[in-house]
Amino acid sequence: MQNLLRVVGSSSLKQCLRTSSRSLNTAQLVCGTHFDRVVPSRQAFKTRHIGPSEAQKQQMLEVVGCKDLETLTKNAIPKDIELGRDLHLTEPLDEYQLMERVQELAKQNKVWRSFIGMGYYNCHVPHPILRNLFENPGWYTQYTPYQPEIAQGRLQSLFNYQTMIADLTGLDVANASLLDEGTAAAEALAMCSRSNKRKVFLVSNKLHPQTIACVETRCEAMGLKVKIVDFNTETEIEKDISAVLFQYPDTHGSIKDFQSLINKTHTAGALVCCATDLMALTLIKSPGEIGADVAVGNSQRFGVPLGYGGPHAAFFSCKNNLVRMMPGRMVGVSRDVDGKDAFRLALQTREQHIRRDKATSNICTAQALLANMAAMYAVYHGPAGLQKIAQRIHHSTILCAKGLEAGGHVVRNNHYFDTLKIKPSIPVQDIKARAEAQEINFRYFPDGDVGISVDETVREKDINDIFNIFKVDSTAEQVSQNQDVLSFSLEHSQWKRTSTYLTQPVFNSHHSETQIMRYMKSLENRDISLVHSMIALGSCTMKLNSATEMLPSSMPEFGNIHPFAPVNQVGGYHQMFKELEADLCDITGYDNISFQSNSGAQGEYSGLRAIKAYLNSIGQTQRNVCLIPVSAHGTNPASAQMAGMIVEPINTDKAGSIDLAQLKAKAEKYKDRLACLMITYPSTYGVFEEKVVEICDVIHQRGGQVYMDGANMNAQVALCRPGDFGSDVSHLNLHKTFCIPHGGGGPGMGPIGVKKHLAPFLPTHPVVDPLAGNSSQSFGVVSAAPFGSPLILPISWSYIKMMGARGLKEATQVAILSANYMSRILEPHYKILFTNQRGWVAHEFIIDVKDFKRTANIEAVDIAKRLMDYGFHAPTMSFPVAGSLMIEPTESEDKDEMDRLCEALIRIRHEIHQIEKGLMDPVRNPLKMSPHTQEQIINSKWDRPYSRELAAFPAAFVRPETKIWPRVGRIDDIYGDRNLVCTCPPMESYMNKDSDSVEGVAAARA
Amino acid sequence: MQNLLRVVGSSSLKQCLRTSSRSLNTAQLVCGTHFDRVVPSRQAFKTRHIGPSEAQKQQMLEVVGCKDLETLTKNAIPKDIELGRDLHLTEPLDEYQLMERVQELAKQNKVWRSFIGMGYYNCHVPHPILRNLFENPGWYTQYTPYQPEIAQGRLQSLFNYQTMIADLTGLDVANASLLDEGTAAAEALAMCSRSNKRKVFLVSNKLHPQTIACVETRCEAMGLKVKIVDFNTETEIEKDISAVLFQYPDTHGSIKDFQSLINKTHTAGALVCCATDLMALTLIKSPGEIGADVAVGNSQRFGVPLGYGGPHAAFFSCKNNLVRMMPGRMVGVSRDVDGKDAFRLALQTREQHIRRDKATSNICTAQALLANMAAMYAVYHGPAGLQKIAQRIHHSTILCAKGLEAGGHVVRNNHYFDTLKIKPSIPVQDIKARAEAQEINFRYFPDGDVGISVDETVREKDINDIFNIFKVDSTAEQVSQNQDVLSFSLEHSQWKRTSTYLTQPVFNSHHSETQIMRYMKSLENRDISLVHSMIALGSCTMKLNSATEMLPSSMPEFGNIHPFAPVNQVGGYHQMFKELEADLCDITGYDNISFQSNSGAQGEYSGLRAIKAYLNSIGQTQRNVCLIPVSAHGTNPASAQMAGMIVEPINTDKAGSIDLAQLKAKAEKYKDRLACLMITYPSTYGVFEEKVVEICDVIHQRGGQVYMDGANMNAQVALCRPGDFGSDVSHLNLHKTFCIPHGGGGPGMGPIGVKKHLAPFLPTHPVVDPLAGNSSQSFGVVSAAPFGSPLILPISWSYIKMMGARGLKEATQVAILSANYMSRILEPHYKILFTNQRGWVAHEFIIDVKDFKRTANIEAVDIAKRLMDYGFHAPTMSFPVAGSLMIEPTESEDKDEMDRLCEALIRIRHEIHQIEKGLMDPVRNPLKMSPHTQEQIINSKWDRPYSRELAAFPAAFVRPETKIWPRVGRIDDIYGDRNLVCTCPPMESYMNKDSDSVEGVAAARA
Repeated sequence: MQNLLRVVGSSSLKQCLRTSSRSLNTAQLVCGTHFDRVVPSRQAFKTRHIGPSEAQKQQMLEVVGCKDLETLTKNAIPKDIELGRDLHLTEPLDEYQLMERVQELAKQNKVWRSFIGMGYYNCHVPHPILRNLFENPGWYTQYTPYQPEIAQGRLQSLFNYQTMIADLTGLDVANASLLDEGTAAAEALAMCSRSNKRKVFLVSNKLHPQTIACVETRCEAMGLKVKIVDFNTETEIEKDISAVLFQYPDTHGSIKDFQSLINKTHTAGALVCCATDLMALTLIKSPGEIGADVAVGNSQRFGVPLGYGGPHAAFFSCKNNLVRMMPGRMVGVSRDVDGKDAFRLALQTREQHIRRDKATSNICTAQALLANMAAMYAVYHGPAGLQKIAQRIHHSTILCAKGLEAGGHVVRNNHYFDTLKIKPSIPVQDIKARAEAQEINFRYFPDGDVGISVDETVREKDINDIFNIFKVDSTAEQVSQNQDVLSFSLEHSQWKRTSTYLTQPVFNSHHSETQIMRYMKSLENRDISLVHSMIALGSCTMKLNSATEMLPSSMPEFGNIHPFAPVNQVGGYHQMFKELEADLCDITGYDNISFQSNSGAQGEYSGLRAIKAYLNSIGQTQRNVCLIPVSAHGTNPASAQMAGMIVEPINTDKAGSIDLAQLKAKAEKYKDRLACLMITYPSTYGVFEEKVVEICDVIHQRGGQVYMDGANMNAQVALCRPGDFGSDVSHLNLHKTFCIPHGGGGPGMGPIGVKKHLAPFLPTHPVVDPLAGNSSQSFGVVSAAPFGSPLILPISWSYIKMMGARGLKEATQVAILSANYMSRILEPHYKILFTNQRGWVAHEFIIDVKDFKRTANIEAVDIAKRLMDYGFHAPTMSFPVAGSLMIEPTESEDKDEMDRLCEALIRIRHEIHQIEKGLMDPVRNPLKMSPHTQEQIINSKWDRPYSRELAAFPAAFVRPETKIWPRVGRIDDIYGDRNLVCTCPPMESYMNKDSDSVEGVAAARA
Repeated sequence: MQNLLRVVGSSSLKQCLRTSSRSLNTAQLVCGTHFDRVVPSRQAFKTRHIGPSEAQKQQMLEVVGCKDLETLTKNAIPKDIELGRDLHLTEPLDEYQLMERVQELAKQNKVWRSFIGMGYYNCHVPHPILRNLFENPGWYTQYTPYQPEIAQGRLQSLFNYQTMIADLTGLDVANASLLDEGTAAAEALAMCSRSNKRKVFLVSNKLHPQTIACVETRCEAMGLKVKIVDFNTETEIEKDISAVLFQYPDTHGSIKDFQSLINKTHTAGALVCCATDLMALTLIKSPGEIGADVAVGNSQRFGVPLGYGGPHAAFFSCKNNLVRMMPGRMVGVSRDVDGKDAFRLALQTREQHIRRDKATSNICTAQALLANMAAMYAVYHGPAGLQKIAQRIHHSTILCAKGLEAGGHVVRNNHYFDTLKIKPSIPVQDIKARAEAQEINFRYFPDGDVGISVDETVREKDINDIFNIFKVDSTAEQVSQNQDVLSFSLEHSQWKRTSTYLTQPVFNSHHSETQIMRYMKSLENRDISLVHSMIALGSCTMKLNSATEMLPSSMPEFGNIHPFAPVNQVGGYHQMFKELEADLCDITGYDNISFQSNSGAQGEYSGLRAIKAYLNSIGQTQRNVCLIPVSAHGTNPASAQMAGMIVEPINTDKAGSIDLAQLKAKAEKYKDRLACLMITYPSTYGVFEEKVVEICDVIHQRGGQVYMDGANMNAQVALCRPGDFGSDVSHLNLHKTFCIPHGGGGPGMGPIGVKKHLAPFLPTHPVVDPLAGNSSQSFGVVSAAPFGSPLILPISWSYIKMMGARGLKEATQVAILSANYMSRILEPHYKILFTNQRGWVAHEFIIDVKDFKRTANIEAVDIAKRLMDYGFHAPTMSFPVAGSLMIEPTESEDKDEMDRLCEALIRIRHEIHQIEKGLMDPVRNPLKMSPHTQEQIINSKWDRPYSRELAAFPAAFVRPETKIWPRVGRIDDIYGDRNLVCTCPPMESYMNKDSDSVEGVAAARA
């Protein structure tokens, strides 16, 4: 939504954009100070973002024993890294001024018609999905479904997604999405190598160029060899080949016969990977049917905006024999304690505890929100509707081809779905000029050909305009008069799809708007999200995602831009990139930002690759040792391994700090091979390490670089800057600290900040160079789109613009205050692990619950599940310390909500006491038997040694009007992993007509 | 949201706008027919709107025994009124073409800065409220809260609204909103007259002109006398004066001292009514404090878009002694069966069963959605935030005044809040030209003065622009430098407000965005709306309100337009009015449409006034008898009475049809005095009366006119047209048949269609004449805004444009099919009242349940409440027949959902059987004890003679994952009416800190 209701009139904002220096204090350029005295300003956004009121902050300060936030800050943060001044950000805008700025930038993005294709297509986001899912905080503020009993809604939707992908690609299983098509292709090759232990790949030169680039970059550092080949010529498959990778239809739009290649490949014991297009697959034989082992691609065109490149959900499917090696998340069916079928993430141990330095994938997120949109698009249209859309596209393409041919142009493709490669009979410059006059973008090949991709938004007028541009003297209507025109359809080719797909009830039951609206609402209401209660996930920073921040993502000027649109059409985005880069540099102390990485893990990888490229550039090619504390996120060692480094672990001491002596010893030991240190700051233990400056010095003195994981940046913003205290590079989890919502498990954004010396080595891109022509030293390409996921960047940009320097500082201070407040409240009841020397935690803290296993048979998971009975999502479980809960309240939660969570935890502690004292049974107690479902409680038979009321309403604040029910009982993960079911069986196997219930799946399997 | 994601590129749609005549079939103007053959079109909107799939329609047709929809139509509708051809609408647009058209129209609305004032102000809709309430179907698809056990969320919000109004106006009680300020003022005077039986009013000439016009129009027909006076001169209060009405601050912006007037008025036994402004009241003494008995006004500026005039919520508050005469709906606190406090509509019998021909008010709706927005605005800002906003406005106004004075202009106001009347020192034409150049609208008085109203969106730049327009050579900053400038503030005047307001916890607990988001979600989740299940309310047509239809209402080009903006700035709206008028005329067979009436009842009133004016114009002034069948909606006789007519009832026969013999006899008896007949068609019994043509003839032959109530228009659209079969005028409930959502009890829209001879008598307006200068014969003014509630007209316009002639016809046919299908399914179990001679119902049907009182002690209300346990909102209860349920499924519900409702009703019938057979206790059974709450069921004590499972999960389709819990048990209405509590007590009286619970209210009252 663009010109939102709240923007009144038109005006420039320059007048109110004060610089931080007051030197420009002229009446024309700055708001009058006298005026400000007389006329109260509008409500500052920071008061909306920060949860505790002034009075509550005072109460919390009293509890922690600090007179003010400044004192608190001095207690929590080492003196030698304190910033000690305000950031240099522009004065904060209020929510309405912000929208005026957004309008200005939006106007600088030109929404031309795009026929560029290359994996990105215009589409219609169905309005009910737009309004009820994409713009609904009940969907976008959900966390990753690690607590499945309160996440059955989005798990079902992701399960639908997997079913859709497996069905359309004709393969056995699919995962719940990956970041983009380029990395999905790279993951496919890495998986093949894991599977057959070979290290060479044949990759088609007819893949989209960004896919080739991503694959090459990834393989290079992992010691895998990529040969770019033309599969149209006879190709030998040598014995060292791990897999072949081709695209179907290919980047030129052609559909080719790969049968012989596939046979040869399989004969040679190699695997077949196929990049493909979901829409095409509704009409042509699936990759599975032609023999592929793996299929990858982008589901964007299923109802997700272009967004100048993302976020979109990439897909990944494969044959059953590869399922346990598949990267990414996968939803599967298991059963709960009552034997009822239930969804949950399958094979999760592989994912949660990534195999650290053995890993060949660092994937730890998905694009859940976008996968859900794509799945819902299929649910809404159904197989017949999708096929009709595909025919609309395909038949329009045929008309286009036939008209152009009749006009004397050469269509290079023999068989095609939606994309044509045209050798024009008139000068291409002429075509380009005429296209620009009509505000139309084509793909212009280096060989002078023109590419045209048609999509579902196509209208008769578009084809006529194309004809006009190519000086073809006929109309779509005239071409249509040829009765034989549809004889060129794929319908009459060898590729015609004859197999069925999406026959499951869920894809055939929700085609009216009332149906889809109720279906989405019913799924939404099964899940806990930030619209219900706080989600105090340590290290995940589940803070407010404000409506104002979200509004720009719905605007067509941001949504309807192709990632490869000429840069001069995207002034608004680039201005925003520039401002966001400047602001993030100011916040971090770095000199440059790359926006290309789509997740924190991708950011780690990019940062490490940049370090390696830098070291190589100064002749230190031998430096490949990466020191990583044992407390690090699992992605750290995986990323290091993927970047071609050797991981050397560093211990931590009892206080949770890095073992400085060991660090020094190892740094010294490897001083000639030392590439870098990866640290998280504040540490994953939730403490500002005192000696971070010294730690960085130790590394620098030995020729190494420092990578600081930005996961905990929410504790630093405006208080201290990694670039100041010794770090050379960090990723920034924009989906944590900078307010991009978690979307139920994606999207994320992990741009990296670097000091100047690393800047030349940042990611580049083969189509649009984000380094503006200075990419000769770049280490390569990490994402399919040059700027990652631009559609969600306005969220972080808006957050910073509205908070301003003092707002951000206060937010960080309150985040630290809240963590310290909660830890003080809980201290009499739980053992708090790790504080700094002065006894303070940072923005999160860990409570140790492992003793309860011995004293009361209670584990962290029992506490986590019991919290659901109180309406809370559990804090982070057993990370980074086994048998613990890590709590991060963030600054957005008010004191009352924190008090409720504390009350829940204290009441749980009381229940544990009861067990310890023998007053409660060690097995049949409300903790072990949690979470409690309606079926269990509303059952005439109740034979538990505690009351229904204690089970369902364990505190006064858990009232019927606020109660959130877990939809299933405790889930048996092991059962599900042993009996893997990750797609919905087809229609025929259904005994039970109920399309939406897990029971439907059970019936079908029975 | 304007340029929505889904609009790709720019283009004219002309190409696809086929006329129904194929004569314009040139390649340039129409879509190619060959192209259409080759390229499948996008999904037709009608398939999204209409619930049953093709297969389901066939199944339903089989059940009712018709081979197709055409046969069904012939069975249901009298042959002599069948249209027999398609409507002449343009070809249907798909959802994306529609949005392109919307964009085109939006561009023709110019969003200038408005300083017009006159009761309408720019404001900022807080984004969280915009997204989570205004754009959320969980809020806008709710029905009026007549079933309070499943409506506690919106009832609480409306209760907040009442509390806010009572507090700010300083009066004891407020209602849950009225349609607009003009009618609220008229209702105030009517109430005063009801109270003191006097019939003369003194009305200030400083009221907004539209308020004066509405009051005059209303009083005229009711025999009440209005004297327009200048209260600034000494005024005598004669003994026949019922009330005085003044405005504070007045329409010129001045704040005057009314103390002497108020004293005199009270001394004379008359009442004091005060039109006022909520924002001003945060700074100045309330009407209650200065002695007013009644206050009215518009709450629009509390976060509701201007919308070119509406919809907005008008407010109405009064002293306690008048509460039982107060018009409109009022939320009060009562208690449920467990003694728990619960909200419900208070004194509802007065409302539901309007006193027919004794009534002096026909109000039967409110503006619930808009009242909820305004209340939530106050909840979000809180008293301090509101005061700051008011100060921002007031202080800016002072700067403006002082600058203009310094520049040589005369400010006419001595004391003001936000509005100035300026006598300029330069020619007004000069000012106007310069203002237009800056795209600024002022109010231009006939006396040459200029009015300037400042609102919360004001920026320093705006004041500088005003100075520039007035050629004032200074800036806001310069004026601010005067240290004494705030000495002119109301703060230093006798009007300074010293009393507190909004001290209740709810207005002081939700000021962060996380808090307000959770508060709104928690209220939403207490209520049943169309996002959960069908709401088969007979005569209310609860059909799909599609996202596409709703999108334009969020666009600033529709939202940010002042109702008195010059017509040349509002081309988009007027084009839409024109097209919607043409389409509605085509659908109804009328010649003209007036959009001014804001509800069905207002439409009735307008139609009858037009009839009376017409009759007067042809010298038939004596004609004042209005014949109304006894089965009519209660508003019919009330409207007739208010229009100055005498109501004569007509009986119905056993089949539910009008007693034709009696009609003829009465028509003959009153043939000289006969003004009109009011009928509903199909009848309120849900049947197409066979003899409607003859009935109309009977009236016409005796010089009368026929008013057809359009409530049941959903059964007629595209099948038959009232204008064809004899009706002269109808209102059209756009919020029923034409998809405007019910919003939880408003907004509505009741435009009227008339035959040509009545057109000159349609409503006019004192500021913007909707009759375009031909208003000399108009009967007057029925709403404050010239075109009613334009912001929601795009909904109906979009619906018609997307459905097209054949889509609308199919919708009507399916609506009729669905009613007949359900009636056939239920027939073996319930007595179905009324069918036509061939045994068919129209679009709704009545099941008779009154025998169960005798056989099983069960009443309609027991069935209604028991349906809640099944997750259903009850059908219409006991209207138009006592002891019945009237079921209207509409075309938007699919067969599965209808089957579920049927199953619920059949299971309930089975329970009644059990009672009849003595197998269930006549008192302690699941019907009498319904609805069942979580507290009741999740209680260790369960002593009922039926199981918990039967209570909570009475059918297989009621599963935990779909269960919707009633929030309270059966409510005791009588208790609540005896112990009326209609506002939240102030802070001081709270014992319990919990702001959101009804218990909080209870604690405060205890």
